[in-house]
Amino acid sequence: MPDSIYDVIHRRRDVRGEFTGEPLADDVLERVLAAAHAAPSVGLSQPWDFVVIRDRGIRSEFHRHVHEEREVFAATLTGEAADRFARIKIDGVLESTLSIVVTYDADRGGPAVLGRHAIADAGLYSACLAVQNLWLAATAEELGVGWVSFYREEFLGKLLGIPDGIRPIAWLCVGPVSRLSDVPDLERHGWRKRRPLAQAVHQDRW
Amino acid sequence: MPDSIYDVIHRRRDVRGEFTGEPLADDVLERVLAAAHAAPSVGLSQPWDFVVIRDRGIRSEFHRHVHEEREVFAATLTGEAADRFARIKIDGVLESTLSIVVTYDADRGGPAVLGRHAIADAGLYSACLAVQNLWLAATAEELGVGWVSFYREEFLGKLLGIPDGIRPIAWLCVGPVSRLSDVPDLERHGWRKRRPLAQAVHQDRW
Repeated sequence: MPDSIYDVIHRRRDVRGEFTGEPLADDVLERVLAAAHAAPSVGLSQPWDFVVIRDRGIRSEFHRHVHEEREVFAATLTGEAADRFARIKIDGVLESTLSIVVTYDADRGGPAVLGRHAIADAGLYSACLAVQNLWLAATAEELGVGWVSFYREEFLGKLLGIPDGIRPIAWLCVGPVSRLSDVPDLERHGWRKRRPLAQAVHQDRW
Repeated sequence: MPDSIYDVIHRRRDVRGEFTGEPLADDVLERVLAAAHAAPSVGLSQPWDFVVIRDRGIRSEFHRHVHEEREVFAATLTGEAADRFARIKIDGVLESTLSIVVTYDADRGGPAVLGRHAIADAGLYSACLAVQNLWLAATAEELGVGWVSFYREEFLGKLLGIPDGIRPIAWLCVGPVSRLSDVPDLERHGWRKRRPLAQAVHQDRW
């Protein structure tokens, strides 16, 4: 487990098809959640919460919704893109051991959140940093994580009884996997290729 | 450098006062940027770019703006909060070796970004994941990172010549540091205490 951080960062994958459903030990889950909770946050607001979902009923209901939304997206595609998308698995909600929903509470640490007066979204950014800590810690623990984003926030909020004003920002499938693929699923299916780093780096100005 | 990932995650700090300004080797910077670029992204859109800023003129101009915005925030505080805030350093723009601005391009990978039709912000989330990869890689390299958010996006976009439609989401000060503090600055200054993990974790439903 004490891999170099670069190994973990480059090995990490967005998993759909490789979940085994095997159990996940409580102490491992605790370490992964503690890693997420150690993320930086604007004004030390720590605006995230984590809903750990093992209940099969809730996961099945979410899964049905995801597949309705899959159809909504599929209907926007034609030709080759439609064919490619038809072959792509978009979630491992039922096969993974559990799911973790990460939420964002804009009121946490308010009313004057240090560092947020000029950028309303800064708190939302913090919650995302927690997601990436969780993802890397899980990868180091030989677990897979798959971020499912084919859902409507309102649906998910109601499904989990999330209070008004708190926003679900990620549904993450988590659990042991048979392996992590070397190449991202979407690249393997010809959906999109990765961009070279050099194209993304600018010096001093854009 | 091959620390355990948990060590890196828990050692990471949001640095203001500890930058030394010492040089940062090109190969280290390249590794850190490659780590950021290896982040997950919705539909493999990789919607981020990185502007590496060494130019002192640009950094000074940004620094002036940040301190104007500091005054804007300070004016919203009274009593004890105002006193506490007066003692808090909010940036290391001039003392750090360089800065990296991370941007978000909503058109990247479009028009049909897989996984984004139902959640407009999903691309923005991806760019944040890149920030956290960068931050952890830099920490493993014994560098400090400080996210400065006392600025207006419009000002920063103009300062760096960022094209319309592309949004700056983070100004990160980066460079060698004398040390990383054990306790977050804002906790040390009595601004806010960290929340226990147990309060942030829910089972099955909120």
